Amino acid sequence: MEFLKYQKVFADNLHGTDFNAFPANLYEPVDYIMKLGGKRLRPTALLMSTDTFNGDLDYAKDAAMALEVFHNFTLVHDDIMDEAPLRRGKDTVHKRYDLNTGILSGDVMLIQSYGLLFKYSDHKYFAEIIKSFNDAAKLVCHGQQLDVDFEERLDVTETEYLKMIEWKTAVLFAAGLKIGALLADASPEQAKAMYTYGINVGLAFQVQDDILDSFGDPEKFGKKVGGDIVQGKKTLLVLKTLENLSKDLAADFLALINDRSLDESTKIELVKSKFIEYGALEYAEEVKNSYRAKATAALNDMLEGFPKINMFNDLSEYLLGREA
Amino acid sequence: MEFLKYQKVFADNLHGTDFNAFPANLYEPVDYIMKLGGKRLRPTALLMSTDTFNGDLDYAKDAAMALEVFHNFTLVHDDIMDEAPLRRGKDTVHKRYDLNTGILSGDVMLIQSYGLLFKYSDHKYFAEIIKSFNDAAKLVCHGQQLDVDFEERLDVTETEYLKMIEWKTAVLFAAGLKIGALLADASPEQAKAMYTYGINVGLAFQVQDDILDSFGDPEKFGKKVGGDIVQGKKTLLVLKTLENLSKDLAADFLALINDRSLDESTKIELVKSKFIEYGALEYAEEVKNSYRAKATAALNDMLEGFPKINMFNDLSEYLLGREA
Repeated sequence: MEFLKYQKVFADNLHGTDFNAFPANLYEPVDYIMKLGGKRLRPTALLMSTDTFNGDLDYAKDAAMALEVFHNFTLVHDDIMDEAPLRRGKDTVHKRYDLNTGILSGDVMLIQSYGLLFKYSDHKYFAEIIKSFNDAAKLVCHGQQLDVDFEERLDVTETEYLKMIEWKTAVLFAAGLKIGALLADASPEQAKAMYTYGINVGLAFQVQDDILDSFGDPEKFGKKVGGDIVQGKKTLLVLKTLENLSKDLAADFLALINDRSLDESTKIELVKSKFIEYGALEYAEEVKNSYRAKATAALNDMLEGFPKINMFNDLSEYLLGREA
Repeated sequence: MEFLKYQKVFADNLHGTDFNAFPANLYEPVDYIMKLGGKRLRPTALLMSTDTFNGDLDYAKDAAMALEVFHNFTLVHDDIMDEAPLRRGKDTVHKRYDLNTGILSGDVMLIQSYGLLFKYSDHKYFAEIIKSFNDAAKLVCHGQQLDVDFEERLDVTETEYLKMIEWKTAVLFAAGLKIGALLADASPEQAKAMYTYGINVGLAFQVQDDILDSFGDPEKFGKKVGGDIVQGKKTLLVLKTLENLSKDLAADFLALINDRSLDESTKIELVKSKFIEYGALEYAEEVKNSYRAKATAALNDMLEGFPKINMFNDLSEYLLGREA
């Protein structure tokens, strides 16, 4: 699996980086969160993309780091907003330090992520690179806002939901693939194709995550199976079930989703049976496969001339090959 | 006063700008804070700088806006950290909306401030402009962190204090002057001189603010006179008084500064008499005047060829001409 090779290149660079700097109370938390672990998906994909177009991995390292620093900034601030005590099994930044540290260290990480891109200021695509990064950063905030908004709303549509997950999780991954290609002097069309691949894989991955959260194998799924159902999250499965129910039954189903008094495992089983009965599981699988097919199509045109592009098909399988 | 003319150019542009965008819950607070008022010092100075070097005011408007959006981002997040209910006599963002909105709308403002600079991606100094902005943004965070750190520390030195106010308030103003000059194709030396002017005016302004907070005319000073003393803030006046006291008396003075049980006006008068007795007021005036002289010196070399530079001497007088 090529992904793991590039992941190691990135992880070695990260663990050789000391984020501690002056003022210590600002940067010690940065070093803490950056070294907490994670799949390093975005920076690794950036490195794979640059290598595919015969770019220099070493040259691309700072851009990969920019993505990971930005991603971790979002985790720090999102964890405050979600009042999450744990991240990857360890204390979140605002829990380990305090609220103000979480805010300010997050801010400086966001600023730092831009700074890491200035190494490329002489690159012919510098303006395009920094603009792609900025666009993705903005959309990540939009996605987070929609996610917050949707908690209160009862009329979220499937289109809105898919836009939310696209912004919240797919665009940064896609921007990394695009930036990796641009750094290697790939053509704008190739960079765009990598972006399209990234958006579709990101969407497929998130839909798969929705499916696995309810139907995954507890042994293999990292999080607690049924968590979304217990929390009453309006995932694609919920939205599709609601759409396929008559108005009266939809109201009953919404009440079930929002019921916090029901025994957890009873609620999970009841909701799952509705997902199946009303075709939502089947539909979500279709949506996932459709995105995956679009991702593959985006790659196919580039195969000739860039044989390494094939490793992205392996990456798709690695990310999307988990069956419920 | 030329400042007011450029301030109007900026304010007209700002009030003609609708910051509301989708998602509304994210951007409505941006529009709210951006239109709450303020001196618009940083963007106005940027416009003055660009006009001095015969640049296009209209062209520079987005850069001016970038500075103001960034500055307001810091206000939104700082108000959360300070638990401040009011800003310019109105509700702060986290008070009017909620904590999460304050965090996320602040984040998107920071991202937006970079985005406003991409209009200049074809400018020959684009890399220098965005790097100057980024450096200033980073130092503003460092200054805020030191300000937080100093609250807990008893051994803050004068040098540390001056570095904190330089970072927290002077660097963004100075970066604006530099960027304004660069946008007008001023030479790197001229841009650097404008930056030096900005740092020194910013420092002089902050030291003056420390003086006026204790010794200002209540009719003219915007904030409550004596506020720093009541809060026990370790301003330059406090640090210098401590330095000039013997060890035993310094401990007494620190106890007085931190005494929260004492009647407010008694505490204010007691502390002010120490500031005078131990030469801290006189010293602070000297420090202010020394920075002001450095600011003037930075301008003098540029007078020939750029007669409009003279308006910065008027700006210095406008900002620094308030006597205790």
